[in-house]
Amino acid sequence: MRIPNHIGIIPDGNRRWALKQGMSKEKGYDKGLNPGLEVFKICKEIGIKEITYYGFTVDNTKRPSVQTKAFTKACIDAVNMLSKEDASLLVVGNTNSPMFPKELIPYTKRRDFGKGGIKVNFLVNYGWNWDLGSLNQNDSIGKNNIIKNLKSRDVSRVDLIIRWGGRRRLSGFLPVQSIYSDFYVVDDYWPDFKAQHIYDALSWYDKQDITLGG
Amino acid sequence: MRIPNHIGIIPDGNRRWALKQGMSKEKGYDKGLNPGLEVFKICKEIGIKEITYYGFTVDNTKRPSVQTKAFTKACIDAVNMLSKEDASLLVVGNTNSPMFPKELIPYTKRRDFGKGGIKVNFLVNYGWNWDLGSLNQNDSIGKNNIIKNLKSRDVSRVDLIIRWGGRRRLSGFLPVQSIYSDFYVVDDYWPDFKAQHIYDALSWYDKQDITLGG
Repeated sequence: MRIPNHIGIIPDGNRRWALKQGMSKEKGYDKGLNPGLEVFKICKEIGIKEITYYGFTVDNTKRPSVQTKAFTKACIDAVNMLSKEDASLLVVGNTNSPMFPKELIPYTKRRDFGKGGIKVNFLVNYGWNWDLGSLNQNDSIGKNNIIKNLKSRDVSRVDLIIRWGGRRRLSGFLPVQSIYSDFYVVDDYWPDFKAQHIYDALSWYDKQDITLGG
Repeated sequence: MRIPNHIGIIPDGNRRWALKQGMSKEKGYDKGLNPGLEVFKICKEIGIKEITYYGFTVDNTKRPSVQTKAFTKACIDAVNMLSKEDASLLVVGNTNSPMFPKELIPYTKRRDFGKGGIKVNFLVNYGWNWDLGSLNQNDSIGKNNIIKNLKSRDVSRVDLIIRWGGRRRLSGFLPVQSIYSDFYVVDDYWPDFKAQHIYDALSWYDKQDITLGG
């Protein structure tokens, strides 16, 4: 079976899940921590080389303060959990902002934890316009030069994006690295994660014809 | 019913359709002309304000010469057909290239045909890296400034992308304008277009919750 090198994870549906349980919206985020770890373990076991999690974006910080606090805490906890695994971990996002949690500043340079190995990127206070905002320091329009001038330059091209929560949109997730990504949507909300979602996504990916436009 | 302002059209599957008919791959492209016109007429009737067709990309020109000639001719014919309608027409793509058909140079400045009205953009020899290659002439990273510095700046944000041919990827289609687009995939090949595809896509779009990340 052909497996993707790099999987992007968009863990959506936390607030809708909370409402369905009769809880207030912000209570769903911390139910996304165990799914995140499970995804990591499955991917590592299968031999995936890189995972990028969509933590939160500049757009998301428009949400009510109680939600922003909750998803920010969830992202801090998620990164802490991942730092206890064998992984090469990097947090990517706009640190020149009060919305960027200072607890995660130490992670904004890629570092090995444990035995290192699988690359894990976590997007925190990420913004597509922040990411693209430094382009063209260099006159050449070669594709490699564009990636090298992104703020997210240490994140490689994404082969497969899996989005939970049923929405069929990329919501600004790494616009350049997702140019050719195959996009698989799980209708279940992220806190209702099952390992089968990953296996189904990988089976589906195996059937896709990767042409890169050619 | 809530209708999108701007629909992106990715008309894929021409070569697979041709093979299914027992024809050689390049014979499928000109079967995509009538669908393109039908899409235009339906959208105009419904009150859609802008349509962008994915004609061909720089990546596509890696294909064998017989295919490149065929899809280039189909795009020229498509633009000519649209220029006989009431539309505000613009062709967007890298004109500094031998792959850009000189017949379409006159269309690279937006012009009204007939009574004008609905904006129609046609991407020809378009490349995502060409599009992004002039960013940051301006220091500010505001979202509006990024769009203003794109080569495709005269194409507005896309609300709904409809892709025929079953593939679930954007293949470099306007990376910035598609940041928040809802993405609807039709499994049928483009030459097997039916009006019902558009109506189904619009019904689906009506049910989506447009949050722009908030």
